[in-house]
Amino acid sequence: MADENSVYIGKKGVMSYVLAVVTQFNSGAKEVVVKARGKSISRAVDVAEIVKNKFLNDVKVKDIQIMTEELQNKEGTSSNVSAIAITLAKE
Amino acid sequence: MADENSVYIGKKGVMSYVLAVVTQFNSGAKEVVVKARGKSISRAVDVAEIVKNKFLNDVKVKDIQIMTEELQNKEGTSSNVSAIAITLAKE
Repeated sequence: MADENSVYIGKKGVMSYVLAVVTQFNSGAKEVVVKARGKSISRAVDVAEIVKNKFLNDVKVKDIQIMTEELQNKEGTSSNVSAIAITLAKE
Repeated sequence: MADENSVYIGKKGVMSYVLAVVTQFNSGAKEVVVKARGKSISRAVDVAEIVKNKFLNDVKVKDIQIMTEELQNKEGTSSNVSAIAITLAKE
């Protein structure tokens, strides 16, 4: 899938990301992947649920993947962080 | 699935829940469902990842569901909260 169909969830309000996902679908995307790491994972689930329940009723959760990513610190050490990728698709 | 094969993620440290999941598998469970709501969702993903990557290499993520649950406040009003259910299974 092309990377322009991904929305990375950060520290902004949930509705910013909901709008980003809705905009991608309204621009013709058939699938949008909502991605997040660490504490933003719960916000990613909020975004997916709000998009499909409140805005786009023809959008469903197609797939959910969880994974562990290794982050490199500036000091050269590394730490593990959980991540999620929620694939939303138009029916 | 019987409810004793579920682990509900709350505010305790991640390793408490990792231990609970590992204990259920070691007691003979073939599947354990890790459940969480709201901000605990990211901790649920941590628990699932740590169990399968560090403790039980024959355990895989079989299914992940996300949903919206309605919570009743004491005042009689209700609010929506996102939830996750991660099904871990022994191969």
